[in-house]
Amino acid sequence: MRHILIIGIGAGNPEHMTVQAINALNRADVLFIPTKGAKKAELAEVRRDICARYVTRPGSRTVEFAVPMRRTEGRSYTDSVDEWHASIATAYEDLLERELSDGQTGAFLVWGDPMLYDSTIRIIERVRARGRVDFGFDVIPGITSLQALCASHRIPLNLVGKPVEITTGRRLAESFPEKTATAAVMLDGEQAFQKVEDPEAEIYWGAYLGTPDEIVISGRLDEVKEKILSTRKEARERMGWIMDIYLLRKGADFDD
Amino acid sequence: MRHILIIGIGAGNPEHMTVQAINALNRADVLFIPTKGAKKAELAEVRRDICARYVTRPGSRTVEFAVPMRRTEGRSYTDSVDEWHASIATAYEDLLERELSDGQTGAFLVWGDPMLYDSTIRIIERVRARGRVDFGFDVIPGITSLQALCASHRIPLNLVGKPVEITTGRRLAESFPEKTATAAVMLDGEQAFQKVEDPEAEIYWGAYLGTPDEIVISGRLDEVKEKILSTRKEARERMGWIMDIYLLRKGADFDD
Ligand SMILES: C[S@@+](CC[C@H](N)C(=O)[O-])C[C@H]1O[C@@H](n2cnc3c(N)ncnc32)[C@H](O)[C@@H]1O
Ligand SMILES: C[S@@+](CC[C@H](N)C(=O)[O-])C[C@H]1O[C@@H](n2cnc3c(N)ncnc32)[C@H](O)[C@@H]1O
Repeated sequence: MRHILIIGIGAGNPEHMTVQAINALNRADVLFIPTKGAKKAELAEVRRDICARYVTRPGSRTVEFAVPMRRTEGRSYTDSVDEWHASIATAYEDLLERELSDGQTGAFLVWGDPMLYDSTIRIIERVRARGRVDFGFDVIPGITSLQALCASHRIPLNLVGKPVEITTGRRLAESFPEKTATAAVMLDGEQAFQKVEDPEAEIYWGAYLGTPDEIVISGRLDEVKEKILSTRKEARERMGWIMDIYLLRKGADFDD
Repeated sequence: MRHILIIGIGAGNPEHMTVQAINALNRADVLFIPTKGAKKAELAEVRRDICARYVTRPGSRTVEFAVPMRRTEGRSYTDSVDEWHASIATAYEDLLERELSDGQTGAFLVWGDPMLYDSTIRIIERVRARGRVDFGFDVIPGITSLQALCASHRIPLNLVGKPVEITTGRRLAESFPEKTATAAVMLDGEQAFQKVEDPEAEIYWGAYLGTPDEIVISGRLDEVKEKILSTRKEARERMGWIMDIYLLRKGADFDD
């Protein structure tokens, strides 16, 4: 039987790699590295860097593969994601059949932690359910961008004893500040924090975390909003792409 | 000036240590290890194990210290935590003054990630604000118990594009299933999942994650509730202590 390792590689800093992840890399015969088109070349670069630094097993191979694009036109959000996952599942099936022989182990290197806003696990489950290729799999956790954000700002995620919501830009309006005192926001292409009108809200923002290009800004939302927007725009133009994440918070540790 | 490193050491498996955390350990002149009384001896043991495995710097010292106990009698929850943090801050001040000379670096080894339901960062900020000892500090992220839980169950934390709430046993009733489709519950001394009555709810439970004693159970909440309660009770009696965490979920990836 084939075996798959879904390995979290951290969110930008090659030193986010855990000893468990390094050992897992070295159990794999084949390392699968997604290449997502030119603008994400830096991400593929971090993955190659990690392999160069930590792979010591002689004779393991690296296989780069193109991730199918998501089509959104004329589809609902869920239909578009569902269809996209189906096409990635087919790409994975082909990879497993072509690149792994029976008894071999393949590793998928996943940005951050595979549990957080990533679909590798559910796509691998889909491939298994289809039944064309037979395999077992394991998941190895990795440092997420949310942890990199909190570490760089040197802040706790939660207020004392209080809950935290992790959400996306698309859903922020349903959440902060009415529903939760702390919201961590990922996958935000529209800078949803702009629409939050709350004089008490504070923001902790970070882009390219863990990389040499890391930028962090924090403060009262209404005081730093413009600075974040212009910094983000400028960085995005200069680099050709951006990855950013932020925390919104209201209230203090010891109010109840 | 003195320098403090607040280092996340992962949630039980010494292989959760990141390369960044190992390097940070080796920048410290003094390693501070909390000892929390007999029943948490295993936790102090994991920390000692980590030092034995990864500390290669010659001449660094380990200093064990007793963490003051929290008093709850006749105090509100927030008052009791506030007072407790104040007494830990005093213990830290004494440690820094006594054990670190000017220019030296001390490291606090924090279970999981310092950002998640841990007060080391806010207590260190309190010590700084008091102004008795002058120092700078950095935070190094670590694998959390929530990541260990998801990895062992091989599940994503969130449903596709949906939010997640991280909360405590005390607050679960405010959250799941009304407010969120996924709740991750930590610090639950009362097994709050017992009170959730929802035929669709699923639970992913784990105890002693990352350690050789790891136990995981998952399924429909109403089908596995009793099994989790009895397993937890038996394990707690046998071991003398328990650490457990779980995820409650309702709904599926592609319903909207
Ligand atoms: C598809 S999700 C993957 C998250 C990843 N699995 C993790 O654990 O962080 C991508 C989102 O993660 C965040 N992100 C990932 N890496 C980041 C980084 N280095 N700096 C800032 N944000 C990052 C951004 O919000 C981005 O939109
Ligand atoms: C004070 S919080 C600290 C959390 C830690 N900072 C982290 O990142 O996981 C302690 C809670 O974490 C959870 N926990 C920590 N380690 C665990 C483990 N190895 N297995 C199960 N639960 C754990 C339990 O819910 C416990 O009540």
